[in-house]
Amino acid sequence: MSPAINRQLYLHQRPSGVPGQEHIRLREVPVPRVESGEVLLENIYLSMDPAIRGWMSEKVSYTAPLALGETIRGSTLGKVVDSGHPDFCVGDYAVGIACNGWEDYTLADPTQIYKVDAEIDFPLSHYLSIYSAVGLTPYFGMLDVGRPRPGDTVLISAAAGTVGSLAGQIARLAGCKVVGIAGSDEKCRWLVDELGFDGAINYRSNLDLTAAIAAACPNGVDIFFDNVGGAILDAALMNLNNFARVVFCGAIAQYNTEAPVPGPYNYWQILARNVTVQGFLALNYRDRFPEAIQKIEAWIAAGDLVFHEDVVEGLENTVSVFSRLFSGQHKGKLLVKIR
Amino acid sequence: MSPAINRQLYLHQRPSGVPGQEHIRLREVPVPRVESGEVLLENIYLSMDPAIRGWMSEKVSYTAPLALGETIRGSTLGKVVDSGHPDFCVGDYAVGIACNGWEDYTLADPTQIYKVDAEIDFPLSHYLSIYSAVGLTPYFGMLDVGRPRPGDTVLISAAAGTVGSLAGQIARLAGCKVVGIAGSDEKCRWLVDELGFDGAINYRSNLDLTAAIAAACPNGVDIFFDNVGGAILDAALMNLNNFARVVFCGAIAQYNTEAPVPGPYNYWQILARNVTVQGFLALNYRDRFPEAIQKIEAWIAAGDLVFHEDVVEGLENTVSVFSRLFSGQHKGKLLVKIR
Repeated sequence: MSPAINRQLYLHQRPSGVPGQEHIRLREVPVPRVESGEVLLENIYLSMDPAIRGWMSEKVSYTAPLALGETIRGSTLGKVVDSGHPDFCVGDYAVGIACNGWEDYTLADPTQIYKVDAEIDFPLSHYLSIYSAVGLTPYFGMLDVGRPRPGDTVLISAAAGTVGSLAGQIARLAGCKVVGIAGSDEKCRWLVDELGFDGAINYRSNLDLTAAIAAACPNGVDIFFDNVGGAILDAALMNLNNFARVVFCGAIAQYNTEAPVPGPYNYWQILARNVTVQGFLALNYRDRFPEAIQKIEAWIAAGDLVFHEDVVEGLENTVSVFSRLFSGQHKGKLLVKIR
Repeated sequence: MSPAINRQLYLHQRPSGVPGQEHIRLREVPVPRVESGEVLLENIYLSMDPAIRGWMSEKVSYTAPLALGETIRGSTLGKVVDSGHPDFCVGDYAVGIACNGWEDYTLADPTQIYKVDAEIDFPLSHYLSIYSAVGLTPYFGMLDVGRPRPGDTVLISAAAGTVGSLAGQIARLAGCKVVGIAGSDEKCRWLVDELGFDGAINYRSNLDLTAAIAAACPNGVDIFFDNVGGAILDAALMNLNNFARVVFCGAIAQYNTEAPVPGPYNYWQILARNVTVQGFLALNYRDRFPEAIQKIEAWIAAGDLVFHEDVVEGLENTVSVFSRLFSGQHKGKLLVKIR
């Protein structure tokens, strides 16, 4: 029943900046045969995540780097088209987080993927957006790592991104004052007018970001939810209150650099201000995913959470879609629909 | 009853490196008169603390910087020689943490100093060493911030320093495997032979510190107690286990620099390894000082804690004694006895 051809995007050359066609190439290979204990997924959606850029480098990340020639690893949602495992039947839908690939068919490890219900009132793609890392990361990051108290001031970098915009909205639901940092006036207006942020700072038009944060957060910052690192983190550190928490969620500023990137020049402020910086991955909270999904569903049903998906069609467009993650030209979770 | 002259060491010029006689000068002023609500302390011991170097710069620290012309601020132990406050009588002994000065007499704020019992079985100077920040910082830093579990591997920078050596011994008492980093083979031998550390690394003779830590900590590092920052922190970050804790206690590496100092190049590992970095000051735990002192006294009585004091006599020697903090040529807590 499997067609003859499996198109795969693989790592041809390690990129030194934003990856392009010269780094990631398309090849056609036969669709693998399913052995006992394996499951064949026909991928429908590919999730575009900045972390994938990290795996293309040789530096140590939280998973092993990709080898040259290896199919780009990522999160996908697909349909089971052949199964050698009793838990998965042909016709089931399943998601694999950071264990499937940018390809038509993935021979999946049944212990790594999980079935999702297709009889739902929302698009299947939501399993790769709001009900995946992109929604669960801000949920656990803000509520568990950030520990917001009503009245706290929360500052968010890359606030117009999916993770950032959800983190900010969750902080507002927790009773906090929320200020976002984004890269255009349009994005800043969106944060304030559509998402109800209390303030927004365009880091491109504010040369003195430390002063801009101080002006927007006159009571100081209690929680900094950081997706960016670099100069934005340095400016935030100078505005932290005593006992502030830095939720270290990402460091977009350094994904596309090859030279060693220094940590924040104001690292010392972590000591001076009794700050806690905590790195975390949503996967650590796997056993609490059902709780989070239930809470998020309720917020969405009540109209309290706004989120966007940006779905582009065609496996052949994946590399150029992926590069948009680093250009600031997308709004919401980026997905590629390949079928 | 006050003598006529109060010798004071004051900030004449901001140092760009280790402070010397050209930065800190001696002057003689009249002993101040006590007004109602004030207390006059005749200082006996001055505590030599690296943090004082930070106050000599203009950069923001956890207390305000010293003004030019201001008497060097510090922690002292003294005897009350005149009192305008009912809580303090002539003949009482009192300690002021980071609020008294490098001078014969300090006109003290009675809300900032605290009385200590002079009828004791240990030298009065201990109130400025083991029973002051230098003992309380490793106590709360290791037990509260580090949260050691039996069997954890604990790595300590500046391990032969007073704070580091106590932190390591407290970790051993908590059932951990302890490895120290120090600057000479002699210090390393002392850590292992005298203090019972499980291992020690001479960072001066190990060019690849990351590999040296990996060799000394084959199970990875669960707690890094950091007094240094810089390259040692970077090497430690590469050896942290998932969910490791970095107790950010100090950053000697940057006290004497004027140029902006980058944070750790491996800052990203905080995210990749789900690490928590926490800055803290022992003063945050003020209400638990009695508990800590009681515990430390019991350990000392049982012979479980080794610590050293290095007491030099003479106010006129203070600047050169202070500079020894940054040369690695002292062992144990440095104090100046001025009377």
